[in-house]
Amino acid sequence: MNFCSECGLPVTVDVPPGEDRPRAICKHCNVVHYENPKVLVACIPEWKDQILLCRRAIGPRQGLWGPPGGFLESGETVTQAAIREVQEEAGAATEITALYAVLSLPEINQLYLIFRGRLIDPAYRAGSESLEAKLFSKRTIPWDKLTYKMTADLLRRYFKERELPHQRVTLPPLTDLILTNSFGVR
Amino acid sequence: MNFCSECGLPVTVDVPPGEDRPRAICKHCNVVHYENPKVLVACIPEWKDQILLCRRAIGPRQGLWGPPGGFLESGETVTQAAIREVQEEAGAATEITALYAVLSLPEINQLYLIFRGRLIDPAYRAGSESLEAKLFSKRTIPWDKLTYKMTADLLRRYFKERELPHQRVTLPPLTDLILTNSFGVR
Repeated sequence: MNFCSECGLPVTVDVPPGEDRPRAICKHCNVVHYENPKVLVACIPEWKDQILLCRRAIGPRQGLWGPPGGFLESGETVTQAAIREVQEEAGAATEITALYAVLSLPEINQLYLIFRGRLIDPAYRAGSESLEAKLFSKRTIPWDKLTYKMTADLLRRYFKERELPHQRVTLPPLTDLILTNSFGVR
Repeated sequence: MNFCSECGLPVTVDVPPGEDRPRAICKHCNVVHYENPKVLVACIPEWKDQILLCRRAIGPRQGLWGPPGGFLESGETVTQAAIREVQEEAGAATEITALYAVLSLPEINQLYLIFRGRLIDPAYRAGSESLEAKLFSKRTIPWDKLTYKMTADLLRRYFKERELPHQRVTLPPLTDLILTNSFGVR
């Protein structure tokens, strides 16, 4: 940030009174411009033993597969955002059944909330940001064509947890990943 | 947003190509300025049957009690942020034990992540944004002097869930509140 988004004059970077870190400050408007991490939501839409993934038509990771997801928009709840993203990217109607994981990515200032969902019916089609949308079982997932290592780690864990009896989940946590134990008790 | 934070020229509000809602766009920099909800974290720090609350020294809700919390900063994970806020507002060292609740407040573009924590030792003192910090049991909580109705709803539910046997939690959900069942299985 170089200029105040309110008045267009240059900002100063300084520690505001009573705070402990530098911020962009407009001395004209007397406004501190806070820059905070952005929230993304994703959904693992389930249909029987399969989950719905999308192949990305745009960057980043164009051509690779991942769960539908995207930025949380102003004015919506996180579950509304997850339902919207599944509709937009995979043309499918879902209901959200649980929060599955919370993943902080501080190096890129992002926070991911990953939900489990249930397809209301098995109708889907690629949205404008997807090349394909498709149901996969654990066996058919394109493990070497997923968007990120994090995607593969998450989905491997997801299928492992699905197979456990509904009781104590004892898998070790992934780095920076808070699992909410939608499959069992911590 | 009236002016581009990169170049200081006026922005135009328009729907970018391939998108479905108006954004602030700088036609000079060719940059879309996305405005997204902000994340706040809070922690319920536990010490035996008590929890640590702070009485706010500053607005909003100056003079009222609530769990320590605040905005997620760039470059930190959500649990780091929760630990930092307990240290800053209540002078106490905690470890985070579980994600307790996720609360969307779309009307003010905020998303709250509320954690359960454990005091590492029962030492605490009011930080610069607090008038007091104090341990309360369910019986001694100042129910009529809490920051928000949401705070009261959340803490009432928290104590109710603490008292349930560690098994199926069947309390009805609060509006817009995703509970992660850190006390039991959904």
